[in-house]
Amino acid sequence: MMRDDLPGRLAALIGPDHVLTGDAMAPYAFDWRRRQESRPLAVLRPGSTAEVAAITRLCAQDRVPLVPQGGNTGLVGGTVAIPGMGSLILNLGRLNRVRALDPADHTLTAEAGCVLADLQAAAAAADRYLPLSLGSEGTCMLGGALSSNAGGILTLRYGNARDLVLGLEVVLPDGRVWNGLRTLRKDNSGYDLKHLFLGAEGTLGIITAASLKLYPRPRQVETALVAVPDPAAALALLGLARTGTGDSLSAFELMPRFTFDGSRDILGREQDPLAEPSPWYVLMEAGSGMAGPLLRRQVEAVLETALEQGFVTDAIFADSLEQTRKLWLIRESLPEIGRKIGGAVHTDISVPVSRIPDFVATTLAAVAAYMPGIRPYPFGHVGDGNIHFNVGRPAGMDTAAYLAHAPAIAGLIHASALAHGGSISAEHGIGNLKAGEMVRIKDPVELDLMRSLKELLDPTGIMNPGKMLPPS
Amino acid sequence: MMRDDLPGRLAALIGPDHVLTGDAMAPYAFDWRRRQESRPLAVLRPGSTAEVAAITRLCAQDRVPLVPQGGNTGLVGGTVAIPGMGSLILNLGRLNRVRALDPADHTLTAEAGCVLADLQAAAAAADRYLPLSLGSEGTCMLGGALSSNAGGILTLRYGNARDLVLGLEVVLPDGRVWNGLRTLRKDNSGYDLKHLFLGAEGTLGIITAASLKLYPRPRQVETALVAVPDPAAALALLGLARTGTGDSLSAFELMPRFTFDGSRDILGREQDPLAEPSPWYVLMEAGSGMAGPLLRRQVEAVLETALEQGFVTDAIFADSLEQTRKLWLIRESLPEIGRKIGGAVHTDISVPVSRIPDFVATTLAAVAAYMPGIRPYPFGHVGDGNIHFNVGRPAGMDTAAYLAHAPAIAGLIHASALAHGGSISAEHGIGNLKAGEMVRIKDPVELDLMRSLKELLDPTGIMNPGKMLPPS
Repeated sequence: MMRDDLPGRLAALIGPDHVLTGDAMAPYAFDWRRRQESRPLAVLRPGSTAEVAAITRLCAQDRVPLVPQGGNTGLVGGTVAIPGMGSLILNLGRLNRVRALDPADHTLTAEAGCVLADLQAAAAAADRYLPLSLGSEGTCMLGGALSSNAGGILTLRYGNARDLVLGLEVVLPDGRVWNGLRTLRKDNSGYDLKHLFLGAEGTLGIITAASLKLYPRPRQVETALVAVPDPAAALALLGLARTGTGDSLSAFELMPRFTFDGSRDILGREQDPLAEPSPWYVLMEAGSGMAGPLLRRQVEAVLETALEQGFVTDAIFADSLEQTRKLWLIRESLPEIGRKIGGAVHTDISVPVSRIPDFVATTLAAVAAYMPGIRPYPFGHVGDGNIHFNVGRPAGMDTAAYLAHAPAIAGLIHASALAHGGSISAEHGIGNLKAGEMVRIKDPVELDLMRSLKELLDPTGIMNPGKMLPPS
Repeated sequence: MMRDDLPGRLAALIGPDHVLTGDAMAPYAFDWRRRQESRPLAVLRPGSTAEVAAITRLCAQDRVPLVPQGGNTGLVGGTVAIPGMGSLILNLGRLNRVRALDPADHTLTAEAGCVLADLQAAAAAADRYLPLSLGSEGTCMLGGALSSNAGGILTLRYGNARDLVLGLEVVLPDGRVWNGLRTLRKDNSGYDLKHLFLGAEGTLGIITAASLKLYPRPRQVETALVAVPDPAAALALLGLARTGTGDSLSAFELMPRFTFDGSRDILGREQDPLAEPSPWYVLMEAGSGMAGPLLRRQVEAVLETALEQGFVTDAIFADSLEQTRKLWLIRESLPEIGRKIGGAVHTDISVPVSRIPDFVATTLAAVAAYMPGIRPYPFGHVGDGNIHFNVGRPAGMDTAAYLAHAPAIAGLIHASALAHGGSISAEHGIGNLKAGEMVRIKDPVELDLMRSLKELLDPTGIMNPGKMLPPS
């Protein structure tokens, strides 16, 4: 636990104003989903990589656990200080400089505490595009997005967060700094170390800065809401659209009818722009660096073909920025409905794209059989095989009574995903929420490799203990 | 060294026909560039992952070094059996099955010994595209391409080999099999282990199979040879072309005038299709999943803008497959010229894309100052910052006398690349050719991490010793 002189020694390293205790910790010591307690000894807000390194060195010597934290928007408890562990939260928010932006090189080098939306804006100001976009982009920070290998709505075209990274600066668990901040597109001069830290949830080191790929800024974007009879038709449309738009499809989100009925009944919002109800919908978006009418014509041709072949029954384009916003608002109403329902089981699974129809049908049947009246509303980034298969309580059922079934319902959904060659965590990560389950289902060889890497890099076990891997 | 009963025990594992000794080893026991000797104790040709695992287990017990080998087309000695080490070459050529190809999922799962061109053909037969293309694609195998993180001509758009990998099957240095053959686009359920083995040149384990991303097949391809005044103009054209074609640019190769003069003087081949000589050229290619005249119009518009702005002085399109072949033959004449010159220093550097003009100018001056009459011909994948800065001997100079200067000349070029934030190995890897130099220039923290990983995964040191990391 905390030695008596630790606060003073930390204050000497980073200044007393940046060692928060008591009520001052409140903005940092909570779980985004409010499901867990977060009880740090103190919250540290260092101002530089050197300060992060100094803190880490001290904590390694004293065996004080460190919980790295960015915008604290994670959904699996990755940035909470587990009660009783005597951890320090290491908030990176003051490391918020853009160190370099080179438009000709299409690269951006920024510190871990930069807010994602600010980096998107910095790229746009240089006529470039940072294609990482998630619901929390106004709050989440670069370091957290990379440590959790964030996904989001653009991965179909641009990949996950790790795919945008050219180089990293990392403070290792012993306080040494690895300066791997390269901006090279090709570099085969050694093992690729950056992928060890990307997606490791701060359990192997602390990402303090990163060099990212930028892209040409899309000058033409087409957004359409499309009614489809079933997920199989959505997949057929996906194939047509990838080919027919020259692979310029950037988002492809599947939504059930519940999106509209739930909006009406639960949020009091009528937002269906189509004449007839459909069991399923796709919100698709394509972008091009070329302004002009061509992309629209391509998407229209795709939809016409799909209509003829019966994969699509109706569609509407956004013809203004306002309409684009409204179409996206439909998609965004789904998490909102979940919050309003109160009792809802959230999952974040992925399966191979081609297995989505079977996965959705099988899993819908399994949860309906488990509890009559249950309200499943699977939706998500179907172009990546990533479905948030969420399930609301039956109307009128007591929330607490329903949530007592949450582990069993999530278990059904996870088992179905695994049976379809899938994953129990597509984009949200493991944190402490799924660490126990991950260990139970993981291939033993893979788990052994993970544990070996953890022991190699963090022999004192101070880096975000209890996250990703439960204590063995 | 080899225990007396080892050949018999190996034969018992994989069959006596697949344990080659003596002259039968000749097709496998050589260095592609014929610069090194390769002296294995035997060449093993297992037929399955289980057989690879059994061999590896035996070799770990007996401490017999293993050199994994695919098509043996590497350029840095990664697949030679270093004389005196008593190694076995483990050739993966018999693991050559396509295990799965799912067009709807856009994935392909294949074994390490599949020839790259065969996999390209298998994808094309399913109306899909495997966007990994290199000079050696008719001979090189998947396992080698992944173990060396191959680059090639399509990385500008599709990334390096590692970027195409969704999952791996790996035999670990103790003979255990890690089955990480997933086909998920998003999976955050643990550390990302595959990147440890990708690009590790067989020093951390043996890749036996991989799941790869496929893409929509391009239906329209436009290829153009463009005359540019200098590398800075080439970069300006690159920016225009990425934006103006909706980022559908797949190749962007810089070539010096020497390409044509050298072809004429050294290969006896007149192949300049343009009216006036230019100091520099770009061979560019854009592809689209949409057939039709649009892509051509986009590229034409880009070139017209570039002409007006002075970045381009002339250009010619390929109007037939035959003309496309001829334009690419110009690019391919450069390695051919190098072989004919006899004395030529080959390098494989990368720098940030925006630093190419300064790097090229500085390095041309440095090598010219080193030796009058020297014939540098930097060329390559300039869209990725990857330049093969090759340097031929002065006309008339004795080849052996020139090659005595090769280390010094390569040293000048590497020093310049490093001074420009670059790498001494962009796409060819380290092998044993660059292992010593890599260790000298590597950041000590990074080198220490590399050595730690090697010791963790391969504690007996049997995996391709002397490659990537020299014995410490």
